[in-house]
Amino acid sequence: MKTRYIFVAGGVMSSVGKGVAVSSIAKILKSKGFRVSAVKIAPYINVDAGTMNPLEHGEVFVTRDGTESDQDIGNYERFLDQNFSSQNYITTGRVYLAVINRERNLGYEGRCVEVVPDIPEEVISRIQGVSRKERPDFLIVEIGGTAGEYQNLLFLEAVRMMKLKHQKDVVFVLVSYLPIPAMVGEMKTKPTQSAVRSLNEAGIQPDIIIARSERLVDKPRKRKISVSCGVQEEDAVKL
Amino acid sequence: MKTRYIFVAGGVMSSVGKGVAVSSIAKILKSKGFRVSAVKIAPYINVDAGTMNPLEHGEVFVTRDGTESDQDIGNYERFLDQNFSSQNYITTGRVYLAVINRERNLGYEGRCVEVVPDIPEEVISRIQGVSRKERPDFLIVEIGGTAGEYQNLLFLEAVRMMKLKHQKDVVFVLVSYLPIPAMVGEMKTKPTQSAVRSLNEAGIQPDIIIARSERLVDKPRKRKISVSCGVQEEDAVKL
Amino acid sequence: MKTRYIFVAGGVMSSVGKGVAVSSIAKILKSKGFRVSAVKIAPYINVDAGTMNPLEHGEVFVTRDGTESDQDIGNYERFLDQNFSSQNYITTGRVYLAVINRERNLGYEGRCVEVVPDIPEEVISRIQGVSRKERPDFLIVEIGGTAGEYQNLLFLEAVRMMKLKHQKDVVFVLVSYLPIPAMVGEMKTKPTQSAVRSLNEAGIQPDIIIARSERLVDKPRKRKISVSCGVQEEDAVKL
Amino acid sequence: MKTRYIFVAGGVMSSVGKGVAVSSIAKILKSKGFRVSAVKIAPYINVDAGTMNPLEHGEVFVTRDGTESDQDIGNYERFLDQNFSSQNYITTGRVYLAVINRERNLGYEGRCVEVVPDIPEEVISRIQGVSRKERPDFLIVEIGGTAGEYQNLLFLEAVRMMKLKHQKDVVFVLVSYLPIPAMVGEMKTKPTQSAVRSLNEAGIQPDIIIARSERLVDKPRKRKISVSCGVQEEDAVKL
Repeated sequence: MKTRYIFVAGGVMSSVGKGVAVSSIAKILKSKGFRVSAVKIAPYINVDAGTMNPLEHGEVFVTRDGTESDQDIGNYERFLDQNFSSQNYITTGRVYLAVINRERNLGYEGRCVEVVPDIPEEVISRIQGVSRKERPDFLIVEIGGTAGEYQNLLFLEAVRMMKLKHQKDVVFVLVSYLPIPAMVGEMKTKPTQSAVRSLNEAGIQPDIIIARSERLVDKPRKRKISVSCGVQEEDAVKL
Repeated sequence: MKTRYIFVAGGVMSSVGKGVAVSSIAKILKSKGFRVSAVKIAPYINVDAGTMNPLEHGEVFVTRDGTESDQDIGNYERFLDQNFSSQNYITTGRVYLAVINRERNLGYEGRCVEVVPDIPEEVISRIQGVSRKERPDFLIVEIGGTAGEYQNLLFLEAVRMMKLKHQKDVVFVLVSYLPIPAMVGEMKTKPTQSAVRSLNEAGIQPDIIIARSERLVDKPRKRKISVSCGVQEEDAVKL
Repeated sequence: MKTRYIFVAGGVMSSVGKGVAVSSIAKILKSKGFRVSAVKIAPYINVDAGTMNPLEHGEVFVTRDGTESDQDIGNYERFLDQNFSSQNYITTGRVYLAVINRERNLGYEGRCVEVVPDIPEEVISRIQGVSRKERPDFLIVEIGGTAGEYQNLLFLEAVRMMKLKHQKDVVFVLVSYLPIPAMVGEMKTKPTQSAVRSLNEAGIQPDIIIARSERLVDKPRKRKISVSCGVQEEDAVKL
Repeated sequence: MKTRYIFVAGGVMSSVGKGVAVSSIAKILKSKGFRVSAVKIAPYINVDAGTMNPLEHGEVFVTRDGTESDQDIGNYERFLDQNFSSQNYITTGRVYLAVINRERNLGYEGRCVEVVPDIPEEVISRIQGVSRKERPDFLIVEIGGTAGEYQNLLFLEAVRMMKLKHQKDVVFVLVSYLPIPAMVGEMKTKPTQSAVRSLNEAGIQPDIIIARSERLVDKPRKRKISVSCGVQEEDAVKL
């Protein structure tokens, strides 16, 4: 049984509800009888959340194996009624530290170790490590941050490389925000279009767009998002 | 007396209030005793607004010389108590039609007429035509549409070319939107950062950012916009 | 019988041999018994090549119906032993002039006519017009200019829109250049990678890359292009 | 006496001669009586060059304080007849390792440590550390890699942030390559234009472009580069 990967990233701004999207997708798949697991990619450099001030950054969530991870992992546990461990939590700091330590220990056999492809490959190897250990039917991976920022570019590059190799086993979901500015009272799709352009620039075409807004998204806007963002209207725009 | 140019474009989405910004800047400068004029660049292809359904697109504004232009020209007239004419109204259709007619009439003397630089140069020549005729101290030019869209790229290219030639006489103002999503209750600067990256990509660095929001912009966000968007905090971020 | 579309664009710089690629692909398909036709998209604004100085821009090629088109059309005719007409020759000027005239004649029924989608839709309708008239199995469309330039962005947008609608019937070929600078004596793939990023940014992922160089492209470089440009190595990189 | 900074980055591809440009600029300034120093930023992750196979990556250059750095530092020493130390050699690995160690040691006081701005700020602090120690009139900083690659984005971000703060003390030089493809025999500026667009996207406008080619760059091409890359022709394009 092969693992399928569902990557979830956010557009336009932070706090659009990527974590809830990940948990919900995982929960739905689990309720259909699939084995599921989840990975949180936090783009910060902190190796774990233990050094962060809880007053400012919220409570740390401690996994069973003692990892001080972030609340998203806690949400996954509660939604799925499963336990997660250090493996399910990836940060920029963890990835770089592992690569640098391997380099210092001659693990790259005299090679010049490069930001691309060596960082994305470490990310891929960590994600695939979770698959090998937990053997889920679906592994849902949340990519923190916002499409277009420097801090998640190398994670997007990892997705691009995985999708190139396993086209049919990788799905990319963009959770994006449709503002309704009080001054106009109308829902705006332009920021989402620009988020998709940022993803395209990173070599990624989202398969599904989850649009968040204070109101339901109407037909003309669904159509606009479909055409301008390159997502099939009939089966892909879930709003 | 040389004319100074103030270009005003919008970020994140349409309807952020570029027209009001243009009128207000013009009004303030006029009240200081300067001669001012304004140009509206509408990125649509319609040669004039006469063919547009007023029920959907709002009333046409007819200038003194009989041009069916759009309401922004009307606003400029009311704010400034000045009359405008066909010259003050540029559309993509007008620019292309003029260039194509000139080409058909051998006005380019056997040259291959190119999208760049020939379209931006026609735009520049129209803007400078207004300066020559009206001799304002300041000419404020509103660029319709949203930074990053195809439809205003060639107008931005015109600004880039003008600024390269007359560095000290051209100022670029971005009017951008800072959403406060109900679900988080916090003002977000990320969409503005991404709007500025789109401008940068078009070779333009805004000098001033006018941030529109439902609340006042606080110090930390001003600072964030300054650092991430490349605008001097002390004299340039007017919010 | 449905028509399949093969779009051919150029990367890195002009004169990489897009015309030869188009003619060769068409010739090979014809020799396999398929009905083929070709379209040349010239990104210049000249409505036809009749106004261009032949000393500078080369001889005009006059099609049977009297259109003063460019030499690429002549090459297609010679390679394929078929005649082409005005329909097979699209320029930016032709497209804009048609849209502007239609707008002036109220052909858009009171709509605001926009650069996107109205220009790409006119391009698509012209390409599909050739299919309807000639009913080829394959229609090969050469997009002049270089990926990333303003002048072919709207043609790329037309391709993106067509591919979104008819995913399986549209193939995109990038003809790119791999320089071997005398000072290093080594073939360089970086400019091709940056050309593909420009295409990605326009929402297009090439299916096939034809790499032009003074020497054969070796295995490691094929692999590099495959991985970094998102093209399957085994069936897609034809070098 | 304030230090002025000259950043030198490469466009189009690697091996365009950034190192020679840096050494030459430094040498010329030194010969005019200025105190100069240099920094090499190598974008690889190796903390030093000691783990790299010399057969593949060339000899390591060992500085006086025992740092296994790369040959560029050796070239600087020979050109300038000055000794350099560990401080003058920055790699991605060094920067991340320092930031991660500081984070682990609670050096960020409970903060979430972010790729931007914390990585660029560490880069800036290292560059300014050299200024403080050596007190040069000019510090020339070579940024390895090619404009537009992921691996030097954060170094470019450091430059952008420095230039925002000290506009008059920071100059950015792009060393770019103008290929003359054998098949056309003509020098091509397009790849350089696209390199500059990549820089612009990273928020940087080069002040000077050093164009490398097998032949002298003629007037029309100088003009083309000037206009399309936003560099003043009269005082800035040094070819």
